[in-house]
Amino acid sequence: MMKGDSLKGLQGDIRAFAKARDWDQFHTPKNLSMALSVEVAELMEHFQWLSSQQSVMLDPPKLEAVSQEIGDVLIYLTRLADVLGIDPVDAAFRKMQLNEIKYPVEKSKGIAAKYTEL
Amino acid sequence: MMKGDSLKGLQGDIRAFAKARDWDQFHTPKNLSMALSVEVAELMEHFQWLSSQQSVMLDPPKLEAVSQEIGDVLIYLTRLADVLGIDPVDAAFRKMQLNEIKYPVEKSKGIAAKYTEL
Amino acid sequence: MMKGDSLKGLQGDIRAFAKARDWDQFHTPKNLSMALSVEVAELMEHFQWLSSQQSVMLDPPKLEAVSQEIGDVLIYLTRLADVLGIDPVDAAFRKMQLNEIKYPVEKSKGIAAKYTEL
Amino acid sequence: MMKGDSLKGLQGDIRAFAKARDWDQFHTPKNLSMALSVEVAELMEHFQWLSSQQSVMLDPPKLEAVSQEIGDVLIYLTRLADVLGIDPVDAAFRKMQLNEIKYPVEKSKGIAAKYTEL
Repeated sequence: MMKGDSLKGLQGDIRAFAKARDWDQFHTPKNLSMALSVEVAELMEHFQWLSSQQSVMLDPPKLEAVSQEIGDVLIYLTRLADVLGIDPVDAAFRKMQLNEIKYPVEKSKGIAAKYTEL
Repeated sequence: MMKGDSLKGLQGDIRAFAKARDWDQFHTPKNLSMALSVEVAELMEHFQWLSSQQSVMLDPPKLEAVSQEIGDVLIYLTRLADVLGIDPVDAAFRKMQLNEIKYPVEKSKGIAAKYTEL
Repeated sequence: MMKGDSLKGLQGDIRAFAKARDWDQFHTPKNLSMALSVEVAELMEHFQWLSSQQSVMLDPPKLEAVSQEIGDVLIYLTRLADVLGIDPVDAAFRKMQLNEIKYPVEKSKGIAAKYTEL
Repeated sequence: MMKGDSLKGLQGDIRAFAKARDWDQFHTPKNLSMALSVEVAELMEHFQWLSSQQSVMLDPPKLEAVSQEIGDVLIYLTRLADVLGIDPVDAAFRKMQLNEIKYPVEKSKGIAAKYTEL
């Protein structure tokens, strides 16, 4: 069973949505990675001219718009993982374990540098 | 309680990871949206020169590399949603409902066009 | 003659570079748009954890790294425009004329909002 | 003098455009890298559901839309280079020289692999 069990319902819904529209033909990993990237850009666009401080304090309409974009990103990410047969939550937990090794607390405390530069 | 309850554990782990490294100062929504975009590009890079057909049939080392990038994307997406106080799985389900309206089956069957062009 | 005449030499060099490596087969507009996006992410990565103020004051090694990424972005943009038969400098000048209409000075002065929100 | 002399006119126009709107305050390298990334995604969006073959044969309205996005990308790239004091055409020529070394013809002929994998 998939670790991200709450995502299973979402995954199933997306699968049915695509099937009903005969979109499986378009949903190759290559195409989905592009669509994912486009959705992330739409999300990022909300922040491009804001200061970092402003980006913390979004007004309700902006927060709702951002929330919808986060939904879109998760939809495409879930779909991409599905067509590749990858469990995204399991992949994230495994990556966190690698990150613990790549970014030891004593070396990376207060420093936002890539592990290759530590 | 958050709908995406299996993501709650992941969210908690990332929060602790960032806190231990004193990285909350860097994790503004603006910065996290950029990091998310960079991770998606690293994911997409694996597909850029492949045909759509090749992207379906990845060999095991490539699939593992792609899996790690999917993990990274989910980590930053979960983190961004956390600092904004958004439940990403709920946002995705709500977006799916909007998509049902924006993309009626009869209009979008077999056509990969944006809803504004249908 | 192409308006961006100083880019013509660059365009020719890239064309010869790709031809010598038998890479024309990979350089479809779709694939090149992905490669362009990946290069832009590598450029953006240098700025993701910096404050806006810090991003103005890069030290020489960082500036050189950023400069190389800007070179990569221009290479792929020039190449994409070439395979599509588009003059990028002419396209930019025409877009600037549209921007003059979309963003009237009196409406957009000091405001970084999209024209649809003005 | 800048090598990309035909871009100088464009650069000057963008500078005047931003100044007239009091937008210099928003045009930090960090913010401009985000805007550049968003424009590239808008360009890429045109290709996301097309096959590589279809992406070569765009109909005139699509080609015009793509051309405008290429214009936008060059505008932000030129602006970013300007605020950083980088000559983008010179950076591209220098990068091409590095690419000649990283991708020797005999090793990379017909192979679209990253130089680290050659």
